[in-house]
Amino acid sequence: MSITYPEGFSAWGLKAGIKPSGKPDLAMIARTGPAERAASAMVFTRSVIVGAPVIIGREIRAALMLPPGRAGEPAGRLAALRAVLINAGNSNSATGAAGVRDARACMEHAAGLLGCEAREVLPSSTGIIGRPLAVGKITDRLGELVASLSRGAEADRRAAEAIMTTDMRPKTCSREVVIDGVTVRIGAIAKGSGMIAPRLDSAFGPSSPAATMLAFITTDAFIASADLQGVLERACAGSFERISVDNHPSCSDTVVCVASGACGGAQLRPGAAGPGGGSGGFEAFAAALAEVCDDLALQVIRDGEGATRVFRVRVRGAASDADAACIAREVVNSPLVKCAIHGRDPNWGRLVTAAGNAGIAFDPATTSLTIGGVEVFRAGVPITPALSDPRLKEAMGGDRVECELTVGDGPGAWFMLGCDLSKDYVSINADYTT
Amino acid sequence: MSITYPEGFSAWGLKAGIKPSGKPDLAMIARTGPAERAASAMVFTRSVIVGAPVIIGREIRAALMLPPGRAGEPAGRLAALRAVLINAGNSNSATGAAGVRDARACMEHAAGLLGCEAREVLPSSTGIIGRPLAVGKITDRLGELVASLSRGAEADRRAAEAIMTTDMRPKTCSREVVIDGVTVRIGAIAKGSGMIAPRLDSAFGPSSPAATMLAFITTDAFIASADLQGVLERACAGSFERISVDNHPSCSDTVVCVASGACGGAQLRPGAAGPGGGSGGFEAFAAALAEVCDDLALQVIRDGEGATRVFRVRVRGAASDADAACIAREVVNSPLVKCAIHGRDPNWGRLVTAAGNAGIAFDPATTSLTIGGVEVFRAGVPITPALSDPRLKEAMGGDRVECELTVGDGPGAWFMLGCDLSKDYVSINADYTT
Repeated sequence: MSITYPEGFSAWGLKAGIKPSGKPDLAMIARTGPAERAASAMVFTRSVIVGAPVIIGREIRAALMLPPGRAGEPAGRLAALRAVLINAGNSNSATGAAGVRDARACMEHAAGLLGCEAREVLPSSTGIIGRPLAVGKITDRLGELVASLSRGAEADRRAAEAIMTTDMRPKTCSREVVIDGVTVRIGAIAKGSGMIAPRLDSAFGPSSPAATMLAFITTDAFIASADLQGVLERACAGSFERISVDNHPSCSDTVVCVASGACGGAQLRPGAAGPGGGSGGFEAFAAALAEVCDDLALQVIRDGEGATRVFRVRVRGAASDADAACIAREVVNSPLVKCAIHGRDPNWGRLVTAAGNAGIAFDPATTSLTIGGVEVFRAGVPITPALSDPRLKEAMGGDRVECELTVGDGPGAWFMLGCDLSKDYVSINADYTT
Repeated sequence: MSITYPEGFSAWGLKAGIKPSGKPDLAMIARTGPAERAASAMVFTRSVIVGAPVIIGREIRAALMLPPGRAGEPAGRLAALRAVLINAGNSNSATGAAGVRDARACMEHAAGLLGCEAREVLPSSTGIIGRPLAVGKITDRLGELVASLSRGAEADRRAAEAIMTTDMRPKTCSREVVIDGVTVRIGAIAKGSGMIAPRLDSAFGPSSPAATMLAFITTDAFIASADLQGVLERACAGSFERISVDNHPSCSDTVVCVASGACGGAQLRPGAAGPGGGSGGFEAFAAALAEVCDDLALQVIRDGEGATRVFRVRVRGAASDADAACIAREVVNSPLVKCAIHGRDPNWGRLVTAAGNAGIAFDPATTSLTIGGVEVFRAGVPITPALSDPRLKEAMGGDRVECELTVGDGPGAWFMLGCDLSKDYVSINADYTT
């Protein structure tokens, strides 16, 4: 149960011949039911260089975020997406105006089949950068794709597999939360293995913090797009933006959430009563969506290219959360730290020095580090006996290594999740286009 | 001919048993002649976490930079270093107050043998982080080390080899420049292979832009310490600070230049006449020192851990040099770009997207990229025929790949040198302490 688990959604995936391997590479997620109860939200990469689908997606998002009063204008407000059309094997990025035209051609063809406006179909692409999209291969298969849209295990599996690139495993997730007697469901699929270090943008802020990481979330909650956008941005900041496989955000990073409103009941509103008249329903939904994003983010980092284990760096005592985030990010991205994690080597000096390179001032004399709960460095001085502590060896051998770095007594704290750097990472990435 | 090539210097290196491998690990470079004609300058890592030798070195530098009038005060001005004492195998970093005491014990022992003040002996350490320095092993061998100090090829070789850690090759360089009839010599040795991404500090500025990269430079030029410091900082900004093996600056990065003044003639002064009475001598010396630093930096990046080739990313058209540097640094540090270089894969989309992740705004429509002179991306659009250009294949197969990225029409430009990421990098770093 994943992307078609909530009421009001169908999906499918098939082979369109975009991937040279011949594996499945085209998927659609479609929403059914009345647009008045539906909503959509999305965040994209903050990179300067973005894919054509991101350029188009930002336009669509702007229309979704317009106040309801402007509905009906030609280029005015959009209630919600009708479908997401995803291809793998070609990211349609760094392809200029031709790339945007190609993506629009696919949108228009799909819209014709679905009986909706082109802008109600969000395109999303992942794969090789800088190559023309094979529009004909996609449009040739859209009829079958739309005709096959369905619910259930096979639809979920096909959609999740068709969006994979170097992923070893499909990534799926579902949750349900009962809000004042009404069951709200959330389903999701994601892909992402390399080019993963999401720093995501914001629909409202000048620029909040997104890899090619693609995540598609469906829910039958009844919620307005602007509110859903806020919930999604918060959930992403706590999840996808805390993972880094290779410190190279992608030009295509995209997280999309489509709500059908099919669960019934009243609209979820911040600070307002839930569907059944009670309170706290909005936050309960937000918490469930955050859990889904956390779960997907962990699946993505665990399936990082060549990764054999993950590690978490939790920084405390910084002047601000932003300072702590900066330090945590520097540590999880150090190739030397990642190799130490790969070698199960408690080489804590690499973690501490990486922290010292973040450009954030802190006092070594008030800095301490624990690995798996074993203190290896305290107040600037090594705890040498720790190196022979069997708990340290056990912690370094686990499939998730927990590191806690205290850099002072400030209120700032953050964590980041990274993965080890293996020879397989090099194999996967030294021979990708050729 | 390297570190003892200039007049007024001797050196030696031997095995002190600090490295578990039993290879040479202790070296000294010593200056002879009158202190009045001598000078010293040095730059260190900008990391928050630094080795004990860096803490001490900054104190020594402060004394060197005091105006001449304060000479003779007990903790006052220092004319120049008498010697540099270097050990490999243990970086004496993240070792707290004990580490500083250990380093001072070595300095005092060496000073007793050399007949100078302890603070005239700069300690420098590279190797494992967070382990107590084996002071006894060092002091036990200092008598032999000082007694063996000599000039010539064997002394040069022994000094260069004793400072190596994961280096495959010793790094040496020499230049001479004739300034108004007087021959000025410069000699140098360096080490560095991993933990290389130098961002170096400044003796005067609040913090200018240093790896464990260690570089020791000698010259028989007659120049004041403050002037030599300025020349050294400029030379480092153009060389060592433009290389990155693994984007992890070290806690021990150090570049030291000691001048003996033994070349004769008048003192080199900025904007003033050279030793022979002519002008431009100061800049000629600065240019020669910059060449030495360029040469050493290239040797260091070529010997990067696991590196099989190097690549240069030149960014043009940015709003400022700082913006261009930020973009160039992001590109050379991307593991995806480094793997593409390793695989001789013209996957230019990775270069362009890495540039887009630098946090610097630029317009993709005014962005172009050439690799080995072959334009692969122009004004935001791929030049698809380039991929079958034999010159591109040739460029990707060379031992130095030249990439030029234009991001607009601004005046800002910078370049950075990187190396490829290979499986050997993982091997070297996944099993270092254990």
